[in-house]
Amino acid sequence: MKQEILRILSFNKGNFVSGEEISEKLKVSRTAIWKHINALREDGYIIESQTRLGYRLVKKPDLLLPEEVRLNLNSRIIGSEVKYYSKIDSTNTEAKKLAQMGEKEGTVVIAEEQTGGRGRKGRAWNSPFGMGIWVSVILRPQISPVEAPGLTLVAAVAAAKAVRNVTGLPVKIKWPNDLMLNSKKVGGILTELSAEIEVVNFIVVGIGINVNNESFPEELREIATSLKIEQAGKEKLDRVQLLCELLHRFEEEYFAFITGRQKEILKQWKGLSDTLSSIVRVIGPSSIIEGRAVDLDETGALLVEKEDGSVERIISGDVSLRSIPSKDV
Amino acid sequence: MKQEILRILSFNKGNFVSGEEISEKLKVSRTAIWKHINALREDGYIIESQTRLGYRLVKKPDLLLPEEVRLNLNSRIIGSEVKYYSKIDSTNTEAKKLAQMGEKEGTVVIAEEQTGGRGRKGRAWNSPFGMGIWVSVILRPQISPVEAPGLTLVAAVAAAKAVRNVTGLPVKIKWPNDLMLNSKKVGGILTELSAEIEVVNFIVVGIGINVNNESFPEELREIATSLKIEQAGKEKLDRVQLLCELLHRFEEEYFAFITGRQKEILKQWKGLSDTLSSIVRVIGPSSIIEGRAVDLDETGALLVEKEDGSVERIISGDVSLRSIPSKDV
Repeated sequence: MKQEILRILSFNKGNFVSGEEISEKLKVSRTAIWKHINALREDGYIIESQTRLGYRLVKKPDLLLPEEVRLNLNSRIIGSEVKYYSKIDSTNTEAKKLAQMGEKEGTVVIAEEQTGGRGRKGRAWNSPFGMGIWVSVILRPQISPVEAPGLTLVAAVAAAKAVRNVTGLPVKIKWPNDLMLNSKKVGGILTELSAEIEVVNFIVVGIGINVNNESFPEELREIATSLKIEQAGKEKLDRVQLLCELLHRFEEEYFAFITGRQKEILKQWKGLSDTLSSIVRVIGPSSIIEGRAVDLDETGALLVEKEDGSVERIISGDVSLRSIPSKDV
Repeated sequence: MKQEILRILSFNKGNFVSGEEISEKLKVSRTAIWKHINALREDGYIIESQTRLGYRLVKKPDLLLPEEVRLNLNSRIIGSEVKYYSKIDSTNTEAKKLAQMGEKEGTVVIAEEQTGGRGRKGRAWNSPFGMGIWVSVILRPQISPVEAPGLTLVAAVAAAKAVRNVTGLPVKIKWPNDLMLNSKKVGGILTELSAEIEVVNFIVVGIGINVNNESFPEELREIATSLKIEQAGKEKLDRVQLLCELLHRFEEEYFAFITGRQKEILKQWKGLSDTLSSIVRVIGPSSIIEGRAVDLDETGALLVEKEDGSVERIISGDVSLRSIPSKDV
């Protein structure tokens, strides 16, 4: 009911809707409506009320409230259930717990703040309150563990497209899992899986995007940025809109993945990559490799051509770009 | 203390040990000893007590009590912590939960009965009370997910060797994860992992061995057996002894695995295999393949040579043997 009232007020944003009209549409008493309006106000919505005129939505809170997400979501499965936390250790950890207990495919975990946000290999991910999109998606594809890296590609393509669609900013993908803007990190992806040897039980894909951060801790200042910082007008972005676009694009790419259209995803990934055709240095678990990143293979491995002409297939490592290709995208 | 008293009584099994002697050795009062003796009796130990003579251990309960495991264990890490349950849904599920919460490497979960015991791909595993060894081991190797199948080989070799050492029965390994006796299933392995794309968080290896089962549900009678049924004298086996031997062998093979001696494990696996050199039919996720199983590669994949001479690399599937090689092992 709260959701329905919010829908009506949002639809008429800026204009008054009479209590009578809402009451008729939703077939509830005006007292009930009044109660739900107050609940919305407690969530942070600014709603004006005037005798005779009714209610008017003046301002939405800058929060990723599930009601707002539902209101703006175009996807069918991804985001069909939203678990929302004001503060949590890590959305990926929470999503893994939920999945372990049987939570269904498509459920997303969202938090305004992560106190123990993680990137690859347990590295910390700075996730201050209300500044970013920190979201984890539960997936249950019937694939083997070796196919799981494909979902990092799915998430990277979806996130890059969502950011481009909403902000117009030319975000790029750095192998294997970073989103880059002006050579600084603006987002990242953490894919985790629970599996038997032959078959995946579930996969959790975490996506972190720095949206409205205005500054970063000193140790990150040189390497991290936010969409707001990189935008011409330095305007605050609508996180709900970006999140919903992200979930929608994610679903689109995920459907491509599970219906065998990996090549489409790969093609898009390549078009969005800042790594391919660059000279790279890759610090791997046991060696350092330098060369030109020439391609991505179907498993998500990076192919690096060394000076001697031999091509190395890299499945794990930290990439730094030594020269960036001049072509603009 | 209970553990220490049990150690003294077990060491002198069949003979009386005076309360005074125990009291002096352990530096506790005779009343305290009497209390612990009663606790042991409640666990199912039959302990005779006589004035002047003291205590005498007559019979141990047929249970995998942690005190008994500790008493008989030769390993250093695997089994260093034992979580014991009379009845549980699945030791693997419990071990995964514990590992998720940070439980350390080597901890084992043991149950007398599993109500939801599982084999590969969620298939049910019959696990009646006190009849078998249903154990799961938590491991934290620093490996990538693609290396995880190697731990199924580790477990299979360890289990086959342990059964052979304790019973003399010529148990064999059927690819990928079954223990066979006289062409019937006597045990199985279920390896599950939690991982990022590049690195494993933890691995749980579950091992189930039918030890003292006297019969099986009708649908399993043709395909399953127990060590007791296959033994010449049909004698009941000491499950504690077998479990401790299993954990010991497991540790040995696991150390080989993490120190890069995969080839040793592979060699042993091949020697214990009933699959290699047999004509097999493999029902895979998308096709059926027939041919001769010619080898196992380092990743644990089965190599099958088809009639046309081509060799197929199989990472997933159900194998049935069409002919068994005549050579005895």
